[in-house]
Amino acid sequence: MGHRLADASSPARLAAPEEGIGPDELALATRNHGLPLEALRHDVTPPGLHYVLTHYDIPHVPGGTDWTLAVGGLVRRPLRLSLADLAAFPQVTTRVTLECAGNGRALLTPRPVSQPWLVEAVGTADWTGVPLRLVLAEAGLDPASVDVVLTGADHGVERGVEQDYQRALPVDVATGSAPEVLLAHAMNGAALPPQHGAPLRVVVPGWYGMTHVKWLREITVTDKPFTGFQHTAYRLRREPEEEGEPVTLIAPRALLVPPGFPDFMSRTRVVRPGPLTLEGRAWSGRAPVTGVEVSTDGGSTWQEASLDPEGGHRWAWRSWRHTWTAVPGTHVLGARATDAEGNTQPLDPPWNRGGFANNLVQRVPVLCLAPEDRQH
Amino acid sequence: MGHRLADASSPARLAAPEEGIGPDELALATRNHGLPLEALRHDVTPPGLHYVLTHYDIPHVPGGTDWTLAVGGLVRRPLRLSLADLAAFPQVTTRVTLECAGNGRALLTPRPVSQPWLVEAVGTADWTGVPLRLVLAEAGLDPASVDVVLTGADHGVERGVEQDYQRALPVDVATGSAPEVLLAHAMNGAALPPQHGAPLRVVVPGWYGMTHVKWLREITVTDKPFTGFQHTAYRLRREPEEEGEPVTLIAPRALLVPPGFPDFMSRTRVVRPGPLTLEGRAWSGRAPVTGVEVSTDGGSTWQEASLDPEGGHRWAWRSWRHTWTAVPGTHVLGARATDAEGNTQPLDPPWNRGGFANNLVQRVPVLCLAPEDRQH
Repeated sequence: MGHRLADASSPARLAAPEEGIGPDELALATRNHGLPLEALRHDVTPPGLHYVLTHYDIPHVPGGTDWTLAVGGLVRRPLRLSLADLAAFPQVTTRVTLECAGNGRALLTPRPVSQPWLVEAVGTADWTGVPLRLVLAEAGLDPASVDVVLTGADHGVERGVEQDYQRALPVDVATGSAPEVLLAHAMNGAALPPQHGAPLRVVVPGWYGMTHVKWLREITVTDKPFTGFQHTAYRLRREPEEEGEPVTLIAPRALLVPPGFPDFMSRTRVVRPGPLTLEGRAWSGRAPVTGVEVSTDGGSTWQEASLDPEGGHRWAWRSWRHTWTAVPGTHVLGARATDAEGNTQPLDPPWNRGGFANNLVQRVPVLCLAPEDRQH
Repeated sequence: MGHRLADASSPARLAAPEEGIGPDELALATRNHGLPLEALRHDVTPPGLHYVLTHYDIPHVPGGTDWTLAVGGLVRRPLRLSLADLAAFPQVTTRVTLECAGNGRALLTPRPVSQPWLVEAVGTADWTGVPLRLVLAEAGLDPASVDVVLTGADHGVERGVEQDYQRALPVDVATGSAPEVLLAHAMNGAALPPQHGAPLRVVVPGWYGMTHVKWLREITVTDKPFTGFQHTAYRLRREPEEEGEPVTLIAPRALLVPPGFPDFMSRTRVVRPGPLTLEGRAWSGRAPVTGVEVSTDGGSTWQEASLDPEGGHRWAWRSWRHTWTAVPGTHVLGARATDAEGNTQPLDPPWNRGGFANNLVQRVPVLCLAPEDRQH
């Protein structure tokens, strides 16, 4: 390591066959965390159980009267908004299921070396804030506007590029109403916790997490498509030189609340023989979920699960349930969501170099004990 | 895998040399999480940033009027206490730094295969509850009492043993006042979150986390030393057949708030030349922290840091700071705490098969840029 910025970063790489999780991946895994899957039982994820992915550090952003949000670029009236100014706008609360674009990455072969998620990078919250379209209307968009660039206070270096975290939305998405993009100051009825972007973050219902810029400090309207680091990074590519498709809307996924109880180390689930209710959640950012199927034999056969009503929360996960009669032996459970556009989940993972949008069907190994195996 | 309970568990093992983190360790790392080290800046850790280690699942414990705590065994008046009953006892709030006994495990060679913590399994909270000694006095301890067994609602299997999580305290610790053991129902002024033991948990200031039983449902006073699974597991052994010393009080440790900003993947810290304040926290459960030294050359030389006053919080971490003038190049920072009993931190890790109490000095790699390396 020398003393140039590039010396802090290593190139993007794929793990070798059989290569275990390395110290760099582990350092990310110990600070970011997923939803413990038993917490799928909550309609709204309690604070501290919602997944968190922070690219750099959680920045220390003093809130209160010192804090302002700058709105500038191609607008007629550049704004500088305090939290009190934002509170004077109409407030909207939307229940949103948020998923990291890298969810499922560590299940890929070869494994892209980055945050090593299995399937748990998800959570659902009630986000309260101001519709972005109202703030942009107040600033007055220039007809030549193309992109709305969102800049966070989180600062770091990535592949040799020093940056504040930035993502952009096309103007039609930023000003749209389905979904309606929020500048959120509250989560589940309380002020944002530091790790979720206090005092203000972006929420784009239906989109993967990388677009929901946290610790928002600046909004800049541009007349050109934004080409910053994070837009180049979050693309689906099989080869490094490909342009690739941008990562945008969340692909469908269903997860089970793991039944029974776990082994500490193997996380194998243990159940006793007899009927039991399998339940879980399913979501898709692309279109409403229309069906969930359950397999108890590792994907060979499937049964239709019962899907609870949407309950007015288009952008949140839906509950489903299915009765299974467990018999002694080992089983692999899984569930598969399908949405109104016919998108569904694969049994072979969709591989790309970034490890994005891998909505491979979950595998839950279950050991059903013989009836006589009772320690208690 | 067959269909007996033991088939869910694999034997305890050490990783082979050069063996990366495996799928089982990763599954634990994605659900449990540490303190992102920048959160050391908070005196009291905000919810969701405090470390969490759950052996099995976070159990679903309905609170409210249905919930009761059973107090029995060798007592004159067995009790069944509701949350309202507990609220009628005197309430105490204590600021406590809690650390997992396995903190530092993944830095050991060979690595014991379990939850792979680096250094971040720590957090500080204000816990509010009823002193355990008052509840035991109400129940009336039999003079033959030896241990107070604490049973949680979390249920699982570990090394083939199905169990509710249980730990015991010797009667003198359970009834002591330095530290005063709490039955806590609130964390940082709010009801306990599910992952921290709602509705009631044990807090034993100064002891490693395994003793702070969460989701407490039963207290049983016994006339024999408790020999349950978790007491056999949490011992310092170099060979499997050793009896080993029990893991009890937290060894001293100091951690730095990592300076500058990070690289996303390597987590290397980047700073620019000039003076900067290094700061962090230090704690010991064995005796008050009396000094912190800082090294900026990987432990070759040490300078005394300035230690903030204890501020009346004996059981919480103390702040320290030290000015460092960064010069271009690479550096390894670390800090070393010493307590009033002369316990300090080693530069070579104290190895044991469980990977417990490894308070090895932290290593924070820092890249100080040349003055001309400015991208912004």
